[in-house]
Amino acid sequence: MGKKNITFNDIAKYTGFSKTTVSRYFNNPDSLTLKNQQIISDALDKLNYQENKVARILANGKTEFIGVIIPNLYLHYYSEMLNQILKTYDTYGYKFLVFTGDDHKSTERKYIQELLSYKIEGMVILSHTIPSRELASYNLPIVTIEREDQFVSSVNTDNYMGAVQATSLLAKTGADILIHINVELSPQVPSYGRIKGFSDICEEYQIPHELILTDTGHSYEESSLILKDLLETIDSKYQGKTKGIFLPNDTFANIMLNHLIQKYGQLPDDYKIIGFDDSPVSSEAIVPISTVGQQIDKIAASAMEILHEQITERHKRKPALSSEPVHKIIPPILINRKTTEPSH
Amino acid sequence: MGKKNITFNDIAKYTGFSKTTVSRYFNNPDSLTLKNQQIISDALDKLNYQENKVARILANGKTEFIGVIIPNLYLHYYSEMLNQILKTYDTYGYKFLVFTGDDHKSTERKYIQELLSYKIEGMVILSHTIPSRELASYNLPIVTIEREDQFVSSVNTDNYMGAVQATSLLAKTGADILIHINVELSPQVPSYGRIKGFSDICEEYQIPHELILTDTGHSYEESSLILKDLLETIDSKYQGKTKGIFLPNDTFANIMLNHLIQKYGQLPDDYKIIGFDDSPVSSEAIVPISTVGQQIDKIAASAMEILHEQITERHKRKPALSSEPVHKIIPPILINRKTTEPSH
Repeated sequence: MGKKNITFNDIAKYTGFSKTTVSRYFNNPDSLTLKNQQIISDALDKLNYQENKVARILANGKTEFIGVIIPNLYLHYYSEMLNQILKTYDTYGYKFLVFTGDDHKSTERKYIQELLSYKIEGMVILSHTIPSRELASYNLPIVTIEREDQFVSSVNTDNYMGAVQATSLLAKTGADILIHINVELSPQVPSYGRIKGFSDICEEYQIPHELILTDTGHSYEESSLILKDLLETIDSKYQGKTKGIFLPNDTFANIMLNHLIQKYGQLPDDYKIIGFDDSPVSSEAIVPISTVGQQIDKIAASAMEILHEQITERHKRKPALSSEPVHKIIPPILINRKTTEPSH
Repeated sequence: MGKKNITFNDIAKYTGFSKTTVSRYFNNPDSLTLKNQQIISDALDKLNYQENKVARILANGKTEFIGVIIPNLYLHYYSEMLNQILKTYDTYGYKFLVFTGDDHKSTERKYIQELLSYKIEGMVILSHTIPSRELASYNLPIVTIEREDQFVSSVNTDNYMGAVQATSLLAKTGADILIHINVELSPQVPSYGRIKGFSDICEEYQIPHELILTDTGHSYEESSLILKDLLETIDSKYQGKTKGIFLPNDTFANIMLNHLIQKYGQLPDDYKIIGFDDSPVSSEAIVPISTVGQQIDKIAASAMEILHEQITERHKRKPALSSEPVHKIIPPILINRKTTEPSH
C-alpha cells in the first residue's frame, strides 16, 4: 500500500520528456506550457508519486522546520506552551523539532548545531542555558520566551503587572502583612518583575511586607520541606495578624495550602494565598487557589507570528537588513478563587 | 559569526580537486587516499564549512528524523512520555518531529503525509485516531504506545497486572465492597486490561464488587460533577460498609478525595481510594494517593529500542523480510500511600 520512491527518471521515461523538463516542473513550473504541466501532473498521479521534500529543500531552501528548545516537560507551564506552539501547524505549516535540554548546556549546543546543519528556518527557545548574545550569533530567526533576551526577539508575560495584581488582591482581603516568597533572580530575567512588582506596590501604598528570597528546593519533596519550615516561621512571627502570601507558582501555593490544612484542618481565616501560572493544580486543589494566569496561547501565537515574519523576510529576494530585536509583552489575567476571600 | 554556506564548488576551487573528488570525500571517503582526505578536511576547517545534512540525506537516505504523534500534552502521562522519548537523543541521535493531534483525524493524516515526504525514518504513535491497519500500510518502522496495535509493533503497560495489584491492595485494607469506575472500553485497547483485571480478581476471590462503566466527562469540571454524583450514590447505597474505590487515573482519584474531604472534613475511615498513573497530583494531593505507577521511562526506552532495530535493519544492504509486529509489555509498580491504609 505504501507509495514507492518514484524518481525523475521514471517520470521522464513515462512521459517521454527529458529529466531537465521534469525537474523544471518541480522547480520552475511556469517555464513549461500548461499542457506539458498537465501531462507531468497526470503522470505523477498514475505513478503514485510522493513528493520528496528533501529535493525541494535543496532547490529553494525552505525546510519549514522550526527547532524548539525547552528546559523540561515536567512543569505544566512548559508542556502547555509546547502544546500551543505545536498547534500553530494549522496556521503556518511549520514542523517542529523538539528538544528538552534539562540544563545540559553542551548537549543543547550540540543539538542546535545539528539543527543548523539540517537547515532549520528558525528557533523558539525557552531554556535558560545559552546567553542571548550567543543565540544571536547563529544568524537565524529566533524568538525566546520568558528568559534573558537582550540580543534576540522575545515574548514574555508582563510579570510586573501580574505581581501588582496579585499583591493588590491580597491587600484587598484585609491582610495585615504581605509576604512574597521567591528565589534570588537576576533583573535580566523576565520573572524578576514578580519580585519588583510586589516590592514597588507595597512601598508605594506603605503596606507592611516581607520579601523572602531563598533556595526553594529542586524537587517536590525538597520544596515541601522548605515551605513547611517557612510556614512555621511566618506562623510564629506574625501571630494574630492576617497574612497574605504571594507564592511564585501554583505548585508552591498548593504545598502551602496543604500544610495549612494539615495543621489547622482547614484554610484558617488569617491566611490568604495566591499563586502564579494558573496550572491545573490551582483549580484542582482541595480549596481552589487564586492565581495569576499567563496567557500561554497568546504567548505561543505571538512568538510564532514574530518568527514567521522574520522567516518570510529572509526568503525575499532583497531581505531587509537585520533589525533590532522585537520584545513583546503579554498581559496576565488575575484569577480570583477561594484562597483570597476577604476575612469575615 | 554565523557559518556561511560553503559549496562543493568552493571546496574544489580551494583544494584544486574536482567536484567529484570532493563529493566522494562526503559519500565514500575510503575511495580517497588518507592524504587527500586530510587536505579536504583541512580545507573545510579553513573555509569554516558547515555540513549540509540535507545533501547527505539525498546521498544515503538517513534523515535521522522520527515523527511523534501524541493526542495532547495536557495529561501529564503524555507530556512525561514525550519527555522520555526526547531524552533518547543522547542514545540514538534521532531528532523528533512532534505533533499533537487533538483527535483531529484529517489533520493528523495530512501531517503524517508531510512527514513521509520529508523521508522520516520511523514514527512513535500515541494517538488513537488512525487504525493500526492503516499505520502498517505506510510501510515504515512504527511503534505505538497504549493504543490499538494489532498490525504494528507496540509497547504497553501491563494494565491487567496493574488492576490486579490495585484491586488486591483495596481488598487487603478490609474493604467490604470494591468499586471500579471507568468508561466503556473496547477489548482491543490496552487499558481495557484494567476493567478485566478488576473483574477477574473480584470474581476469583468472590469479593463483593461493582463495576461502574459510564461517561466520565471531557473536562475537569465535567468529571468533577459526575464523580460527585457517583459518590453520593455510593455513599447511600453502601452505608455502613467500607468502600474500596479503584479510579482509572490519579486526577479522578484526587477529585474523589477532595469531594470526600469537603463533605466529611477528612478522608473517612470507611473509604479507601487508589488511582492509576503515578502522576504528580497523586503525591501532591492533600492526602497522598495510592496509585499504580506506569514505568514511563522504560516504556519510552523500549519503544525507541524496537524502532531503532527496525530502522537499522532497513539500512542494511539486504534487509530481512518484514517480520511480525513485536508487542512488548512493561510491568507496572504499585505505590502504597495514605489512601489505602487498613481501617483502624
